[in-house]
Amino acid sequence: RTEIVNFSSCFLQGILERLDAGEIVIGDGGFVFALEKRGYVKAGPWTPEATVEHPEAVRQLHREFLRAGSNVLQTFTFYASEDKLENRGNYVAEKITCQKVNEAACDIAREVANEGDALVAGGVSQTPSYLSCKDKTEVKAAFRKQLDVFMKKNVDFLIAEYFEHVEEAVWAVEVLKESGKPVAATMCIGPEGDMHGVSPGQCAVQLVKAGASIVGVNCHFDPDTCLETVKLMKEGLQAAKLKAHLMSQPLAFHTPDCGKQGFIDLPEFPFGLEPRILTRWDIQKYARQAYDLGIRYIGGCCGFEPYHIRAIAEELGSERGFLPEASEKHGSWGNSLSMHTKPWVRARARKEYWENLKPASGRPYCPSMSKPDGWGVTKGARELMQQKEATSEQQLKELFQKQKF
Amino acid sequence: RTEIVNFSSCFLQGILERLDAGEIVIGDGGFVFALEKRGYVKAGPWTPEATVEHPEAVRQLHREFLRAGSNVLQTFTFYASEDKLENRGNYVAEKITCQKVNEAACDIAREVANEGDALVAGGVSQTPSYLSCKDKTEVKAAFRKQLDVFMKKNVDFLIAEYFEHVEEAVWAVEVLKESGKPVAATMCIGPEGDMHGVSPGQCAVQLVKAGASIVGVNCHFDPDTCLETVKLMKEGLQAAKLKAHLMSQPLAFHTPDCGKQGFIDLPEFPFGLEPRILTRWDIQKYARQAYDLGIRYIGGCCGFEPYHIRAIAEELGSERGFLPEASEKHGSWGNSLSMHTKPWVRARARKEYWENLKPASGRPYCPSMSKPDGWGVTKGARELMQQKEATSEQQLKELFQKQKF
Amino acid sequence: RTEIVNFSSCFLQGILERLDAGEIVIGDGGFVFALEKRGYVKAGPWTPEATVEHPEAVRQLHREFLRAGSNVLQTFTFYASEDKLENRGNYVAEKITCQKVNEAACDIAREVANEGDALVAGGVSQTPSYLSCKDKTEVKAAFRKQLDVFMKKNVDFLIAEYFEHVEEAVWAVEVLKESGKPVAATMCIGPEGDMHGVSPGQCAVQLVKAGASIVGVNCHFDPDTCLETVKLMKEGLQAAKLKAHLMSQPLAFHTPDCGKQGFIDLPEFPFGLEPRILTRWDIQKYARQAYDLGIRYIGGCCGFEPYHIRAIAEELGSERGFLPEASEKHGSWGNSLSMHTKPWVRARARKEYWENLKPASGRPYCPSMSKPDGWGVTKGARELMQQKEATSEQQLKELFQKQKF
Amino acid sequence: RTEIVNFSSCFLQGILERLDAGEIVIGDGGFVFALEKRGYVKAGPWTPEATVEHPEAVRQLHREFLRAGSNVLQTFTFYASEDKLENRGNYVAEKITCQKVNEAACDIAREVANEGDALVAGGVSQTPSYLSCKDKTEVKAAFRKQLDVFMKKNVDFLIAEYFEHVEEAVWAVEVLKESGKPVAATMCIGPEGDMHGVSPGQCAVQLVKAGASIVGVNCHFDPDTCLETVKLMKEGLQAAKLKAHLMSQPLAFHTPDCGKQGFIDLPEFPFGLEPRILTRWDIQKYARQAYDLGIRYIGGCCGFEPYHIRAIAEELGSERGFLPEASEKHGSWGNSLSMHTKPWVRARARKEYWENLKPASGRPYCPSMSKPDGWGVTKGARELMQQKEATSEQQLKELFQKQKF
Repeated sequence: RTEIVNFSSCFLQGILERLDAGEIVIGDGGFVFALEKRGYVKAGPWTPEATVEHPEAVRQLHREFLRAGSNVLQTFTFYASEDKLENRGNYVAEKITCQKVNEAACDIAREVANEGDALVAGGVSQTPSYLSCKDKTEVKAAFRKQLDVFMKKNVDFLIAEYFEHVEEAVWAVEVLKESGKPVAATMCIGPEGDMHGVSPGQCAVQLVKAGASIVGVNCHFDPDTCLETVKLMKEGLQAAKLKAHLMSQPLAFHTPDCGKQGFIDLPEFPFGLEPRILTRWDIQKYARQAYDLGIRYIGGCCGFEPYHIRAIAEELGSERGFLPEASEKHGSWGNSLSMHTKPWVRARARKEYWENLKPASGRPYCPSMSKPDGWGVTKGARELMQQKEATSEQQLKELFQKQKF
Repeated sequence: RTEIVNFSSCFLQGILERLDAGEIVIGDGGFVFALEKRGYVKAGPWTPEATVEHPEAVRQLHREFLRAGSNVLQTFTFYASEDKLENRGNYVAEKITCQKVNEAACDIAREVANEGDALVAGGVSQTPSYLSCKDKTEVKAAFRKQLDVFMKKNVDFLIAEYFEHVEEAVWAVEVLKESGKPVAATMCIGPEGDMHGVSPGQCAVQLVKAGASIVGVNCHFDPDTCLETVKLMKEGLQAAKLKAHLMSQPLAFHTPDCGKQGFIDLPEFPFGLEPRILTRWDIQKYARQAYDLGIRYIGGCCGFEPYHIRAIAEELGSERGFLPEASEKHGSWGNSLSMHTKPWVRARARKEYWENLKPASGRPYCPSMSKPDGWGVTKGARELMQQKEATSEQQLKELFQKQKF
Repeated sequence: RTEIVNFSSCFLQGILERLDAGEIVIGDGGFVFALEKRGYVKAGPWTPEATVEHPEAVRQLHREFLRAGSNVLQTFTFYASEDKLENRGNYVAEKITCQKVNEAACDIAREVANEGDALVAGGVSQTPSYLSCKDKTEVKAAFRKQLDVFMKKNVDFLIAEYFEHVEEAVWAVEVLKESGKPVAATMCIGPEGDMHGVSPGQCAVQLVKAGASIVGVNCHFDPDTCLETVKLMKEGLQAAKLKAHLMSQPLAFHTPDCGKQGFIDLPEFPFGLEPRILTRWDIQKYARQAYDLGIRYIGGCCGFEPYHIRAIAEELGSERGFLPEASEKHGSWGNSLSMHTKPWVRARARKEYWENLKPASGRPYCPSMSKPDGWGVTKGARELMQQKEATSEQQLKELFQKQKF
Repeated sequence: RTEIVNFSSCFLQGILERLDAGEIVIGDGGFVFALEKRGYVKAGPWTPEATVEHPEAVRQLHREFLRAGSNVLQTFTFYASEDKLENRGNYVAEKITCQKVNEAACDIAREVANEGDALVAGGVSQTPSYLSCKDKTEVKAAFRKQLDVFMKKNVDFLIAEYFEHVEEAVWAVEVLKESGKPVAATMCIGPEGDMHGVSPGQCAVQLVKAGASIVGVNCHFDPDTCLETVKLMKEGLQAAKLKAHLMSQPLAFHTPDCGKQGFIDLPEFPFGLEPRILTRWDIQKYARQAYDLGIRYIGGCCGFEPYHIRAIAEELGSERGFLPEASEKHGSWGNSLSMHTKPWVRARARKEYWENLKPASGRPYCPSMSKPDGWGVTKGARELMQQKEATSEQQLKELFQKQKF
């Protein structure tokens, strides 16, 4: 029987030692979405200035993921490259510099990690510089600026995540590898591959060759689609006779209906996604399937709340031999309902019930799937936008003038 | 144009002064559901021992509601009567006494309220003692024990909430009135009335006669159903020529398909409700309808997260003349998307878009409504359970033996 | 065990003899919808000139209902009053006079009825004259013109059906009673009553007092709603100490979402109703519920195809002691699948399977309910239209000019 | 402007002359489903003994398709091979021999075709002999028996349809080609190909090489899936530098959720498919897409009623230059509603309305998609059943005994 234990004693080694030993490593959830709902992140820019403005809110969310079972706390440095933060200058006070945001993120993550001895991972993500066609030197410089902070703060390992173009992801990995620390790399792509049409298998091969020890996908698609994509990566690596650990951090939203660009094109993005939120039981199914596919770094991205991470930890409780602290407040498979006074609610205190439930939406006037937006534009215009997204207001205006949308 | 202002200057008076002056008072959201997802409350017992165990988590949630616009912070004392806490003794360490839980709840609420000068309301809710047929003296004693703490900690006013039987609610109001502080009373009933069949109008009349200055409903049903119920209360009061302020704190779940007992009987309760979660736009519609109905104390219950409360404050921003702090991180009606690089996402930066969106569930194998459980049991057995719910394990066992479920 | 028998021998008596003896009488289905799909009736006008233009098509449909178990063949004279046919003059060749249409309808129904000794019922329905505020004399004259044909052709009994206003229905019954033949009267109303707000109970009372021996509802709503309405009629009659047989002929479309005016206001009317079509199993449930409510004249209206009528006959096969001819081509509860080569299809050859199936729509981009149209117009304008519908092109134009739609 | 004309004058040539000249040929709809609902065909066996038992019903259905625009009347000889009819001996009276059924089918089709000078096509379909592993000689003998009747009755051309295995379809084409008449061949497969895994492209190539002048698909899948399959056939033919006319006769049911075997495996088959029925507007979309893909023989299969065929003829009215007779009773794109007395119903008299309508199901307790049955059986057992379906009662019993379902 699995016990809830103080996990601090279980966790003394680096990320690669753990994965090499066959352990399951549980990631954390999506900070920008969770903190948007809590009132600290603005949808649209999605930048992490909250690390400076409201550290207590960021700290609390880290703590909840730690309690829920996360073995890795990612620094909240999503979209925290200098070009991105400057670009959103009107939202962020001048004193909140790129460096301060990244430093604060490292400090908070480390403080909470120490409460449970979790690992801290410094993260970089896609840059406006790349999308506006800056050259390799400039793009790499942006990553290096963040890396400097991560090295100064001595994070445990590094993650390059949320890349739509493998070329930029490779550049990021190359920069991060300069540090000598282990590097994980995940792309926000589906089975159709990256925005230039490079297949998932090929993406994985390039990332590993560039130095990534762990590869996979994050964001943009639901667990089913992400696992399908990681499977293709795995097959690509096998075909190329390369070895790497696999990682998945999908959305906690059902997106069977989205196109190549993922959930951003769904009409519900980002303010009407509620009906798509995964239940804890959906997450348990995901965790099991990820495990069966050979993935050992299993976490989440946008939409993942602490209870979703706990669901991963509970599903894999037997394999890991212990449950997370937050399971003190959770009965496995609904068994906390077994003392309910109504027999029909007590009848819900069992695995079969929740495993088979098809939850109703309470929305009879709504459909169950929607058509992704943006398919009406000409292919050329679409590709233009996908490949070279404008980044400054000026560029945006120019782009508008040229386009006939 | 409404401005985001430091609301502390707007808020110097008591609850009745504000309502009498015609101001809109915004409540807070549902603590047990929000903290369950964050890992601090156990579904089933739903008790608030987190005030002692994890005050930082409770404090942070209060803070988020305050930032989102709440003018009232309710002490996290739901189900914190002594009989309830004892009943769940196996979950709660011995040192976590009823008194400590209630005191800690008051301290935390006051600490955060002072950050913004919000009001603190001490809350009591239905007791196992009543459901197991204890007499009036015993039930009142339970409320008085909590009231003692509220008086010691000098809360600003009192709320009797989540009552299924008006008889018990009246007893609660009578006890709370002994304090001399203003009393609000909300029942968790729908248009069909309380569990003994007393109509909403009659419930309101009895509560006002017992001393409540504010009456309404909370929990168990979605906004549409709750507003329908408050409307019946309003009509009942008018017919009886009684005056009181109106209050609503509904679920943030769509429940068009539930029966008299509300969402507890829905097969999705409590671990499969995700597809039913209201969007911020659903909430804005609710806030407007509540306002139009004459309700001036507008808040939420289970399912309400900070961003839902912010949606109330934004919808009524013009009427109130200001926006909450958290609106710094939110563009009204999605306007933070207006700078997005994809034209089809920019096209979502407008009111008409979000107002008219029928969000898809991404769940084509699920229905849109479900049948409440428990309708197969004999009427007698059902009523027995509704009216006299067992509370101790022993009673529960005896009840099982008698029933043929 | 029920047997398929030649029903001609079972059926020698008049409608009232049968109902008085406690027999179940099965009606037929909806001609205008069925023949529209076969290519002989135009949606919009919905007039029955096919009796003259394509008698073979009308005859074949009668025959199919007879085979399916109908004990009554209604003459296809829906909307065949002179004012209605003239109004649609542009659709109907001049030689197709009102008299010819009605006579041909009687001849065809009798010819087929003789193949099985079913009863023939002459039917009248609401008139444009009433809607355009002609007086009682004029409206009655229109009914009398049709009655003359029914008497000449010696139909077995008479049905006044599809009335939205009980006043007009009463006039129709009064005219039909002049014949001395039994009269049935059904209104196309729901539980809210007729278009002037007369309750179903009061409608039933007025119809019986006017001379109807059988009362009930037809068209406009699904079985659930219709049975609820008939129940109110039954209670109205009981309260007034009046006796009459009950009758129901609902739609074969699910319409849980429609308003007071029924399915015409649904956005899907009349060319997008397919996803709402009842299965044969839905019909069996309806037949059982109608029977349990005490209704003994059980049939259908728009949407009912022959196999729906057969489903009534099969559900009540034990009560009646025999099955219809068409059951030779139908296994009860899917048992014709029991020899299928695939085990999972064989598994469908049982009652529980079909009774519990929740059939999928195959339409994930569609909602499950819709909002009735027309609720945006002012109440006055709406009522005007409901109560005084324009009937000639000239009147329509004038009405348009006055309205601000 | 297209006119409704007497089409007899337009139609004087053989099938290949018409197709070679670039004309659009409209097929007819599904007889077994339509006649099952009318009470003349038994679901399960699906055999056409009605041609002898109830010729008037078969004749009337032919006539309706002719009026609706069909240029080809297929003899109602589906599953009319001797082995199939014998197999269902218990359902069919002894005097109804295979020969009589086929002869009557030809006579009825010719009689109605002469009313409009349509072509008559004799049809053969898959045989139990093949499924029970009879050899080529035996299977071909079964087809030849039917062909003898077709030659005696001098049909205009021949169709081999509803084949799941291209091997059997090729044998059928080889037999039919002995006649010297043009041969069309359609398989009931999806994009995954036939039951032995032969791709659609390869199937098409084999059929054309065997002598088919027209190839395509019929039954088992909805229009979207069928068109995708025909597209693959077209590409296969192009790659092989073969020429043939293309043909599609899909279901009139939405089946986005079905597996390789098509709608038979859906839980709703065959008695709960109503919510999936295509509207006339769905059909118009199909007709347009089929035309754009280069298909010129466009018809339907199970679920197609006369009004569905009319919708093909109306959608392609401009291309063809005329409308079918039944369009006298149909306003294009709902324009017959333009005179309705309610403005909101008049507002439906336009193309945009019906084109964009997402029709509600009225079934909030039902899902929008379902999982095909039969996926739980072992792969071996499944394949066994797919490839070698038992055909006699004896074989079936033996198969049962061996299986562990």
